[in-house]
Amino acid sequence: MNIQEIIGQKRDGKELSKEEISYFVSKYTDGTITDYQAAALIMSMYINGMNEVETTNLTLEMASSGDILDLSEISNNVIDKHSTGGVGDKITLILLPTIASLGIPVAKMSGRGLGFTGGTVDKLESIPGYRTQIDIMEFINNVKKIGISIIGQTTNLAPADKKMYALRDTINCVESIPLIVSSIMSKKIASGANKIVLDVTVGSGAFMKNKEDAIKLSKMMKKIGEITKRETTCVLTNMNEPVGYAIGNTLEVIEAVECLKGNVSKDIKEIITTIGSYIIKLSGKNDNLEENKKMILDNIENGKAYNKFLELIQNQGGDTEYIKNLDKFEKAKYIMPVVSEKDGFIEEINAEKIGKVSVMLGAGRIKKEDDIDKTVGIILNKKISDKVQKGEVLAYVHANDEQKGKEAVEKIKEIYKISEMKIEKEKIILGVI
Amino acid sequence: MNIQEIIGQKRDGKELSKEEISYFVSKYTDGTITDYQAAALIMSMYINGMNEVETTNLTLEMASSGDILDLSEISNNVIDKHSTGGVGDKITLILLPTIASLGIPVAKMSGRGLGFTGGTVDKLESIPGYRTQIDIMEFINNVKKIGISIIGQTTNLAPADKKMYALRDTINCVESIPLIVSSIMSKKIASGANKIVLDVTVGSGAFMKNKEDAIKLSKMMKKIGEITKRETTCVLTNMNEPVGYAIGNTLEVIEAVECLKGNVSKDIKEIITTIGSYIIKLSGKNDNLEENKKMILDNIENGKAYNKFLELIQNQGGDTEYIKNLDKFEKAKYIMPVVSEKDGFIEEINAEKIGKVSVMLGAGRIKKEDDIDKTVGIILNKKISDKVQKGEVLAYVHANDEQKGKEAVEKIKEIYKISEMKIEKEKIILGVI
Repeated sequence: MNIQEIIGQKRDGKELSKEEISYFVSKYTDGTITDYQAAALIMSMYINGMNEVETTNLTLEMASSGDILDLSEISNNVIDKHSTGGVGDKITLILLPTIASLGIPVAKMSGRGLGFTGGTVDKLESIPGYRTQIDIMEFINNVKKIGISIIGQTTNLAPADKKMYALRDTINCVESIPLIVSSIMSKKIASGANKIVLDVTVGSGAFMKNKEDAIKLSKMMKKIGEITKRETTCVLTNMNEPVGYAIGNTLEVIEAVECLKGNVSKDIKEIITTIGSYIIKLSGKNDNLEENKKMILDNIENGKAYNKFLELIQNQGGDTEYIKNLDKFEKAKYIMPVVSEKDGFIEEINAEKIGKVSVMLGAGRIKKEDDIDKTVGIILNKKISDKVQKGEVLAYVHANDEQKGKEAVEKIKEIYKISEMKIEKEKIILGVI
Repeated sequence: MNIQEIIGQKRDGKELSKEEISYFVSKYTDGTITDYQAAALIMSMYINGMNEVETTNLTLEMASSGDILDLSEISNNVIDKHSTGGVGDKITLILLPTIASLGIPVAKMSGRGLGFTGGTVDKLESIPGYRTQIDIMEFINNVKKIGISIIGQTTNLAPADKKMYALRDTINCVESIPLIVSSIMSKKIASGANKIVLDVTVGSGAFMKNKEDAIKLSKMMKKIGEITKRETTCVLTNMNEPVGYAIGNTLEVIEAVECLKGNVSKDIKEIITTIGSYIIKLSGKNDNLEENKKMILDNIENGKAYNKFLELIQNQGGDTEYIKNLDKFEKAKYIMPVVSEKDGFIEEINAEKIGKVSVMLGAGRIKKEDDIDKTVGIILNKKISDKVQKGEVLAYVHANDEQKGKEAVEKIKEIYKISEMKIEKEKIILGVI
């Protein structure tokens, strides 16, 4: 077997065998196959596609390219929740402590962000002292002790995916369903979950720009979950406008804490109750989704979810004083309002464009090595369907560089589309697969 | 403009603009664009194709990525002859001295071979003393003085093509019509020709495996010749079996000299008279193709072509004693007969497979850096349609390694397909475009 022949197969639209996929993944991971050969093969996969069998084989080979965690010590029913990404997505920070507060163990490894804002790990690191890099033993012990731990991915988790993802980014091959499926599912399998709930985002700020593609992606992930005996549920959520109000690392932590204290916006409430109800169902605790939704809201209202969050932060070395008194968080130097120049109703707030502005301010990474500025970002003041009057504030820019701040204000003004007619709010939950 | 966007365009099957192609070629040549990004774009070009305008732009950008020679000092009608490659292809060595002997100036830059046997430059270097690396001034002066010079390509001739060709080879993207067209035509344009005759080989030993693809390739090259004001004629020649009898560097030089002395095999005679007649026509010397064919054969018979070849070798530092006495050439250590095991008629001698055996013996390169063993190769004793009896010799293997020689004998025995029925000789000239 050699890589030229494998490239030739996929270039000509033929199916790759399990052996060919295995050869590619192992030889690319160990460096025998070069980046340019991998780039040619990945482009062929992008253009000519991969069927279910090929995608499953790719996923399994990527999963076993590094360590596969064994979390059976914690429970024989470990549930993982994962989002396909978006702008202002702080759902993990709100939902997982709430789930843990219901007595369901949460052992979550999160990624760092690439593009738009940081990932969950970057956001948690906004809390002084919080340790995201701990060893697996301590991770498991934390879950056993307080029922929850959220950490960064260990370095040897699906290393093939790390290499392929970085490459795909530079050669414009990110948005391919089989490649996204194998990237997500390989990490989930390697990180030891046996039940998986996926938040499949759909819209301008997501990989999947339309519902049809999101359904295709979800079906393939569900199928691979089935084949690998990991029950998988996909919840399709709207990512046309950002989730909630805050975009940026510290700003999103603050919004998450506010939610845990009971001040939950309508869209976030819908997302956490829907996804949460499936997590509870998969955990075996309760099959009735409506009851599960109520449990989630109850534990937010009665403070149990917030207390579990405090416990998580404390247990992982974070300074809980910041959580108790959100004013302690360092603020960006400049807070600049974006003012509406006309009356009307908000028609569109393109999430991808908002995400790009936040990256420009320093809240996200363009390259893996980039540093993130934790304090900068955007606070939306108006969301789609809201009424606005000329002179009212649409959003606030939080910037550490005055020039960039001004640029962001101008851009956000353009991003907000205002209609004269009343606009209906878009659906938040688009379906469950 | 950035490379990701350009990749995205071609990935989605869209047309690339002149500016995008220019950006890619210049930034890849100077190293700003990485090999893996170029690999992804080239694979997209391979799968999704390139139209006439894109191919023309790519060709022109590649041609101007380095020096463009000005040969107007020699003539305002400089003709270049080029073959798309094959096995046993020694046509340049026979035809160009013959053309020069008719008073038509020949200024030819040839390549080294990659795959199968060496290129014309490798073959010429089998003649002790022959200098293929001389500067352009000397090259031009040689042509002015004796009417002919054949040298290796200067390093800065279409450097973009050099990088792209080496990359295409490692990522299995060689056999793409627009990429072959731009590779050939960019070098022709850069090397200063204003009339071009292309020997487009078709069959098992050529890039173009069938006539339809060869016609497509030829039409595109002719079109680009038209657009760039370089009149181009393509002669489609059969490459199902090797050309002539010898495969290997020294062995092919010897066969070429034999031809120049008048012992021309039937297939070579047809190729040199056809291609030659078009060269004479393009030179403006004579429009009548039949007369032109006769001129070529006349100058071989009267010794003028052979004498011009001797003059070329001497003028370029080569030892003409080798040419005058072919026995002087060093022979391979082992000369092993391949003996027929049955009676019948030769039905097939797959040129590609014969080429691979010659590479295995050391006559060709697998990688650019590989050394070539000048003495090894294969001499065919029977060609397609020839009658053969059990015990008769089909071919001779010339090897310096006994084990490899034996292996070659076994392989060649398998490559020769022998039929019980009489077999018609295949057509040599498949068409002119």
